[in-house]
Amino acid sequence: MAQKLERIEPMSWWVGMHNPKLQLLVHGDQIASLQVQLNYPGVTLKEVHKVENPNYLFLDLEIAAETKAGQFPIVFTKEGKKKLSYTYELKNRTQSASRVQGVSSKDLIYLLMPDRFSNGDSKNDVVKGLRETSLNRDSMYYRHGGDIQGVINHLDYLKDLGITAIWMTPEIENDMQHASYHGYAATDHYKIDPRYGSNELYKAYVEKVHEKGMKVIKDIVHNHIGTGHYQFTDLPMKDWLNQWPVYTQTSYRDQPVMDIHASLADRKKMLDGWFVPSMPDLNQRNPYVQNYLTQNHIWWVEYAGIDGLRLDTYPYNDPEYMADWALKIKAEFPNLSIFGETLVNAAASQAYFTGGNTVNRGFDTHLPGITDAVLKDAIYEALNGNPGWTDGIFRLYATLAQDFLYKDVTGNVIFMDNHDMSRFYSMVKEDLGKYKNGLALLLTLRGIPQVYYGTEILMKNYSDPDGKVREDFPGGWKGDKTDKFSASGRSSKENEAFDYFRKLARFRQNSIALQSGKMMQYVPENGIYVYFRYVEGAEKPVMVIFNTEDKTKELKTDRFKERTAAFSAASNVLSGATLDQIKTITVPAKSVLVLELK
Amino acid sequence: MAQKLERIEPMSWWVGMHNPKLQLLVHGDQIASLQVQLNYPGVTLKEVHKVENPNYLFLDLEIAAETKAGQFPIVFTKEGKKKLSYTYELKNRTQSASRVQGVSSKDLIYLLMPDRFSNGDSKNDVVKGLRETSLNRDSMYYRHGGDIQGVINHLDYLKDLGITAIWMTPEIENDMQHASYHGYAATDHYKIDPRYGSNELYKAYVEKVHEKGMKVIKDIVHNHIGTGHYQFTDLPMKDWLNQWPVYTQTSYRDQPVMDIHASLADRKKMLDGWFVPSMPDLNQRNPYVQNYLTQNHIWWVEYAGIDGLRLDTYPYNDPEYMADWALKIKAEFPNLSIFGETLVNAAASQAYFTGGNTVNRGFDTHLPGITDAVLKDAIYEALNGNPGWTDGIFRLYATLAQDFLYKDVTGNVIFMDNHDMSRFYSMVKEDLGKYKNGLALLLTLRGIPQVYYGTEILMKNYSDPDGKVREDFPGGWKGDKTDKFSASGRSSKENEAFDYFRKLARFRQNSIALQSGKMMQYVPENGIYVYFRYVEGAEKPVMVIFNTEDKTKELKTDRFKERTAAFSAASNVLSGATLDQIKTITVPAKSVLVLELK
Repeated sequence: MAQKLERIEPMSWWVGMHNPKLQLLVHGDQIASLQVQLNYPGVTLKEVHKVENPNYLFLDLEIAAETKAGQFPIVFTKEGKKKLSYTYELKNRTQSASRVQGVSSKDLIYLLMPDRFSNGDSKNDVVKGLRETSLNRDSMYYRHGGDIQGVINHLDYLKDLGITAIWMTPEIENDMQHASYHGYAATDHYKIDPRYGSNELYKAYVEKVHEKGMKVIKDIVHNHIGTGHYQFTDLPMKDWLNQWPVYTQTSYRDQPVMDIHASLADRKKMLDGWFVPSMPDLNQRNPYVQNYLTQNHIWWVEYAGIDGLRLDTYPYNDPEYMADWALKIKAEFPNLSIFGETLVNAAASQAYFTGGNTVNRGFDTHLPGITDAVLKDAIYEALNGNPGWTDGIFRLYATLAQDFLYKDVTGNVIFMDNHDMSRFYSMVKEDLGKYKNGLALLLTLRGIPQVYYGTEILMKNYSDPDGKVREDFPGGWKGDKTDKFSASGRSSKENEAFDYFRKLARFRQNSIALQSGKMMQYVPENGIYVYFRYVEGAEKPVMVIFNTEDKTKELKTDRFKERTAAFSAASNVLSGATLDQIKTITVPAKSVLVLELK
Repeated sequence: MAQKLERIEPMSWWVGMHNPKLQLLVHGDQIASLQVQLNYPGVTLKEVHKVENPNYLFLDLEIAAETKAGQFPIVFTKEGKKKLSYTYELKNRTQSASRVQGVSSKDLIYLLMPDRFSNGDSKNDVVKGLRETSLNRDSMYYRHGGDIQGVINHLDYLKDLGITAIWMTPEIENDMQHASYHGYAATDHYKIDPRYGSNELYKAYVEKVHEKGMKVIKDIVHNHIGTGHYQFTDLPMKDWLNQWPVYTQTSYRDQPVMDIHASLADRKKMLDGWFVPSMPDLNQRNPYVQNYLTQNHIWWVEYAGIDGLRLDTYPYNDPEYMADWALKIKAEFPNLSIFGETLVNAAASQAYFTGGNTVNRGFDTHLPGITDAVLKDAIYEALNGNPGWTDGIFRLYATLAQDFLYKDVTGNVIFMDNHDMSRFYSMVKEDLGKYKNGLALLLTLRGIPQVYYGTEILMKNYSDPDGKVREDFPGGWKGDKTDKFSASGRSSKENEAFDYFRKLARFRQNSIALQSGKMMQYVPENGIYVYFRYVEGAEKPVMVIFNTEDKTKELKTDRFKERTAAFSAASNVLSGATLDQIKTITVPAKSVLVLELK
């Protein structure tokens, strides 16, 4: 039987990259028994690496700066005779202002799970040849049929809502037997899961999003793959993965990564322990793994023109590799945004993971942003807690007062929930007032706000016990009995929430103070917390007043004159009312006022 | 009536100081109407400053490096005629190895209130001419008669207990109408309160402590004085104090000092607001105040040979002044230890106040140590809390894991209580087992342990509502019906506590691992928290095992081999038992084992 070339990855590349080096992974039965040749002006085959598994070769190419785009064969021979050939393409990089714009505090991110948002193409609901072929919308653990076309179909909805950036949970192939829908168990790094669409559709999706004036964040996973991945079923080398004598799970404790008192054993367990049994843990100290991952991420950004990357399970990755990765990515795409998922319990821990050597640790992660779980907890405490010296609103105040820990806190992604935790509306016990107050805080505080799909229509539920925080968006499927994408499908309460959300999101899009302004906060007094967002010397600062107590208050503003002195009136962003003086402001019980000063 | 010179401060100085400059405060009725002359080889009167109040002059002297010790008159004249004269003395600095040794993690600090520890001299209980002359041991708010002689009388007791450093609440004169006993309302910076003794007795006390091989920490207050101070009753200038249109109290919130979002108004309120109405707030941006305070502290260290300074209410002081102060103090006394009282609520806040630019803030406090209130809270949570992802023992583990925030965490003063908070034994609900476990943690963790007087005899009570955490040490007064300084005066339970304390304190004195070793901690598992103190490559590391659950456990130690591999046996420091193997260690329920490996 003739030898077969399973794959070469990356399957294509570009001329004009910052890094002239490229390492191709070649996978095919007994491929290491063949010789490799290529001949193209500017491209040098520097080295061919054989590894433990003869089904792999790693080819080190160097692409000179002046190399022209074009195609050339990579020829595999045995005893001088050609056995296999692969046409490799080097493309020109696409230049367009709308590509790789970056995501910043000017944006409002909408996180969705593509399997659960909308089914735009029923033909790809079940794809033959993949391991999981059942579709069951009644279970949280099966495929529901949502896809990229479903998202494309609702770009106008998102645009109308005031969203400016879309973050989907991973779209690449997860050819797993069970629970293949969530996307964090990759089985092919270079292929959009066919149940979501195709690479071409993904690229078209990014272009359409850009056409609407919005941006795309891609969710990438460095730490692990799925057990269905060819790199697991036909392991290139033993230390491709973090191997253990018996299955060993991570401790899920970030502390050993930063603790000056940590044992090597605890550090190894955190970093090298597996996330779950179905997700083999990649050994990021292996240079082949490093090249493979880094090139894959560069490939996707260059291929599709993505604006930002969200890095899954950031603290579980090898710190030195991740720092090097960030430098390599930024060298290729200076405008790309990057933020790491850091579900930790202290601002200092979050700051440890951010770039800029802001804490005493000796190395720089070069990571611009993190997911600010500590602020989330503080906002919930402000909404739900009782005031005390460090409790209630004081927790929120004190958490923000620790922002000196970060080099640039405006890169923090702030949020109330995501696919791994209880939904915002449930966390405030379905209290619409608290929901509005929480949204008002989220959309006016420093950082990049992120909301989870369905927040705008009061979707609810707790992450335990049944994972129902991943329910389908009603109306996303043909035949759904309600369509909450349209006002007529929403209840009056849902429309009240939706309208509040949209009004604030749209206001935010036009407020330089909220998008790029500094923040000034005041020590809470008499149950009232006040902060400002402002651009020094500019008009239209925003004043946010949170009355945490259950009676209406008359707030004298003399204390805030550093920020109010130049202004004499205000408009209430949400009610539209005008305040013709701001010396004393009436603040209803348990409410957040968002005022634009004038 | 002839003019009178009330005082010149400092009333004497030294030759051979690092800083050649000296600013004398001269106080006397209409003193500013006089001319000043002095004539001494090496001493130059650079400038005479008149200020708002004609009862003050400030004299800038420069003392050349080669100046010899000696006395010289400072002459005050009017129209060429001598009106007043003051004999100023420049002394030689005392050289002795026992002076200014510094206090480090090798030490165990005993904090006491001199009015409440022991009355060694009943003749000074009431001093005529002072504002408060009542003595009432039945009230927490009156003088009880304790004094420096009382402490001198018990140095052998403290030495025997394993104490190596004594910190008294301030001993300088507090000539206040009410509650003059606590010491934080100074009325004369250069005079030991006569109810405690005299300057000479204080100096003799320091020498006696040094003779016993122990050290002395002086408690100093930069932030405020008492309303009985001459600088308040005859204010040198309006901005000697932080003045407000109406009385304004500090917010007691440290956040505006470090918060990048803080308003100037909040920062001013925190720093310049008064601590309480009876304690006027010094304006530390006033250069005369700066010189006055800094010279006073230098004076006391040089006069008495003190080993360390504890800085009261550190976060309430002007940060720039305090940083400059620390540099000036260290320039004179490189071995002196300094730690600031920082009763704040987050490790990052504590770290903000420590020196070395460990967090992102732009200026260096140059403060070597702080009081680690966050660790205190974490130890209580470990002793009293229920385990959860971040609760119980995990709080203690996670708090220590944030030590990367400090440049040198071994300078943190660690403690369970002090004169401003509920006593340790009450905080563990008078549970002797928890008391022992807490003490074992306190005396084996990183940092400089500090205990509060009476801890060793199970003194108790909560700080609210009656301040009974400042009760007299039983037996410290002649005629006390019990004498708990002696074993026969203590109950069996008190002796059990005392013996446990002493055994551990004495062990600590001989353990290089506990005194100078690094720490390694392990993520708690199965309710057991394990850490080590060790000197790399040295013998006798200490292994501490805290079984937080209520059943005896068999702990397999394979996980800890980084620290145990070189050892095969251990001794239980507290029981004296020998463990002839350490592969599996039996850990009784709810207990802390302190093992020395061998």
